[in-house]
Amino acid sequence: MKTILVVGAGRSSASLISYLLSQAEKFSWKIVVGDTSMEAARQKVGSHPQGKVILFDIAQSDCLQEIEKADLVISLLPPHLHPLVAVHCLKFNKHLLTASYVADEMKALDAEARSKGLIFLNECGLDPGIDHMSALQVIDKIRAQGGELKAFESFTGGLIAPETDKDNPWRYKFTWNSKNVVMAGQATAKYLQNGSYKYIPYQQLFKRTTQVHVAGLGDYEGYVNRDSLKYIDTYGIGGIQTMIRGTLRNRGFCSAWNVLVQLGCCDDTYQMEKVDQMTHLDFISSFLDGNSPRHIKDKISIQRSLDLQGHEVEYLEWVGLFSNEKVGLKKGTPAEILEHILNKKWKLQPDDKDQIVMWHRFVYDDGGEEREIQASLVATGSDSVFTAMAKTVGLPLGIAARLILENRIQSRGVVIPTSPEFYIPILEELRAYDIALKEEQLR
Amino acid sequence: MKTILVVGAGRSSASLISYLLSQAEKFSWKIVVGDTSMEAARQKVGSHPQGKVILFDIAQSDCLQEIEKADLVISLLPPHLHPLVAVHCLKFNKHLLTASYVADEMKALDAEARSKGLIFLNECGLDPGIDHMSALQVIDKIRAQGGELKAFESFTGGLIAPETDKDNPWRYKFTWNSKNVVMAGQATAKYLQNGSYKYIPYQQLFKRTTQVHVAGLGDYEGYVNRDSLKYIDTYGIGGIQTMIRGTLRNRGFCSAWNVLVQLGCCDDTYQMEKVDQMTHLDFISSFLDGNSPRHIKDKISIQRSLDLQGHEVEYLEWVGLFSNEKVGLKKGTPAEILEHILNKKWKLQPDDKDQIVMWHRFVYDDGGEEREIQASLVATGSDSVFTAMAKTVGLPLGIAARLILENRIQSRGVVIPTSPEFYIPILEELRAYDIALKEEQLR
Repeated sequence: MKTILVVGAGRSSASLISYLLSQAEKFSWKIVVGDTSMEAARQKVGSHPQGKVILFDIAQSDCLQEIEKADLVISLLPPHLHPLVAVHCLKFNKHLLTASYVADEMKALDAEARSKGLIFLNECGLDPGIDHMSALQVIDKIRAQGGELKAFESFTGGLIAPETDKDNPWRYKFTWNSKNVVMAGQATAKYLQNGSYKYIPYQQLFKRTTQVHVAGLGDYEGYVNRDSLKYIDTYGIGGIQTMIRGTLRNRGFCSAWNVLVQLGCCDDTYQMEKVDQMTHLDFISSFLDGNSPRHIKDKISIQRSLDLQGHEVEYLEWVGLFSNEKVGLKKGTPAEILEHILNKKWKLQPDDKDQIVMWHRFVYDDGGEEREIQASLVATGSDSVFTAMAKTVGLPLGIAARLILENRIQSRGVVIPTSPEFYIPILEELRAYDIALKEEQLR
Repeated sequence: MKTILVVGAGRSSASLISYLLSQAEKFSWKIVVGDTSMEAARQKVGSHPQGKVILFDIAQSDCLQEIEKADLVISLLPPHLHPLVAVHCLKFNKHLLTASYVADEMKALDAEARSKGLIFLNECGLDPGIDHMSALQVIDKIRAQGGELKAFESFTGGLIAPETDKDNPWRYKFTWNSKNVVMAGQATAKYLQNGSYKYIPYQQLFKRTTQVHVAGLGDYEGYVNRDSLKYIDTYGIGGIQTMIRGTLRNRGFCSAWNVLVQLGCCDDTYQMEKVDQMTHLDFISSFLDGNSPRHIKDKISIQRSLDLQGHEVEYLEWVGLFSNEKVGLKKGTPAEILEHILNKKWKLQPDDKDQIVMWHRFVYDDGGEEREIQASLVATGSDSVFTAMAKTVGLPLGIAARLILENRIQSRGVVIPTSPEFYIPILEELRAYDIALKEEQLR
């Protein structure tokens, strides 16, 4: 019997744990789920005979023996904790899987993991994850046909389904770590456009959006995500002229969110004053000039100072930012307070359904002729637990864990799923869960 | 004979060292000047019989004996090195003076310095320094007359004299550490306005400027500087409703500089690609959308995307940002490259004269009646060595050193010069160097 240890039983763990339990009997697995909240872990595991719930706190030394007892570890902990888990995995010779970006501290463990015959597979969720796999499947096909990739653009968004929360103008709720959503984009985005390196700082990110039309769904807007440049090497597409990875949102979201960015509401570097007495309106007013902070004219002040398109103030009003309701925190940074206020309206309700939209565009040279493929994926959640986000993040991890335990993966060291040994079986199995990209040859 | 050790012989050291040497015979002082560049130290000390030049590198252990031999240390090193100097001063029981803001690491040494009978005097230059002293002199006078301070606004700028560089539309050159100028304002500014706490993030800082009229000089613009709130306690003005400290610039500077802030040119957190081949125009283009980066249309693109007032693009053009000249660096962050480009036009030339302008506004309640005092200081440099900046930063440090060695200062621990034992003798002596504020009772 093999033991899979899943650490972190938060928002995106339901589908992963459910998948592993559903295969546990067939493959003779024991699934151990650890979290700092036993209750969260118990909810996900239920009374499954091959499931076990443990208290797992990476800061405590008794977590080490749980790693020692496992054959493979999947970490859904906050990303900054992955390198710590990885060090323990090195010590006890365990494979490790995450859905997070490869941090430098993780990258630094590559040689040692490789020498021990271990795989530390990262970026194996949705975005990053399915985006890499589905992109490489198309890119490898273009290459196999002798085509030369000129441009790759890819946008993914975790949104809400059309039938959910119809009066919510943002068409958005928190389906992922809400702190991460509030902090999104604070590092400069880097990409390649027609052969030129381009950089977008935080203060321009939600202004310099791209219109994205997804066949059969409609128009969206995208903002550039982190460092697109590093995937030029990883994807093996050195001659490419345009390389952009980004995040997809419904139209209107970015310019409304940009108001919060411009005002400084997403800053997590300092504690605000007198938070215990603060109302939502006090919060937003403290980022505005003007002498009568409690007055509704603040809205006009925002409008005047930020050159808005018109709908932004309505969006802010809908989410409660002009209300005289108390924030309800004793202390906090701007980002923490904003997250708390947004959670009052953006928390997923039991019957809410989320929706994932992914879109790729490939432009390539085919013997002197320019050709274009677009591909897109839409996945809708079942409810607020088995969200589309939980499915698309968790299933690739679960399938990858199975492939590794079945010895079907040769890669070792710190890797991401860009080679056929990952993308062929994983994308194939995802299709059974109705998670698949539709490809269209445009020219 | 007492020994004063000055560490750091950079841009702002000339007047300090000259002052100390001029008093050395009278007070029987030995003035030791240390720098990582012996040449820089030698230029400042010349052949003065009581001056000595040493190689001083805070990272090397032999710097310790120089601190041990001194009676008092003045640090003009980059601010992040002061706490290290301070730890050595604690070890050898030496007083320490700096013109820099009190960092948390310095603040943490307060109790130990106090228990050893040492004074670690910080913020004793121009801004911070003369601004504190001149403000407290007026504030103490208002209090002594029974008035209650309602508002304090203070702006200081290191500019260039009207006769210098007449075609320079910015009316600005580097008279201070150029890296610090490029990085200015990256932490959120905090202040109090009519009883409300206000926060301005970097992306709004150079937009939300204040018009400042200085009597006899004309109109300037100011942007808020760091954390004004912490001086409410330090100044002992707890009931105040408006408290703003800021930086003064000539009109037009802030909206032009704001273009560079908005584009992300002042970011010091990542290395740019292909810097060795980069022209000035390539640099600025890499922060702009658009497909023809080498084309002059970039200017229009800036104009369109940033809602400019009109003069900003001219300012950027004057400073060379659209030129096809090579940057001339092998690698660099955006901030480093921008600093390098700006230095080609903003480096102070031998005959250039700088100008310091400081302005305070005090509003107070005088038995039910609201009264207002404004005070201002203008100081012009002699040349590019004995700049107004060097004088106004260095002389307060030099005078404070003399007062401490004469045992005329009772304060101990980590302090800033806000009490009469500092401001009365220092402001008095500065008057002899033609550095004095003019006060005007407006109502």
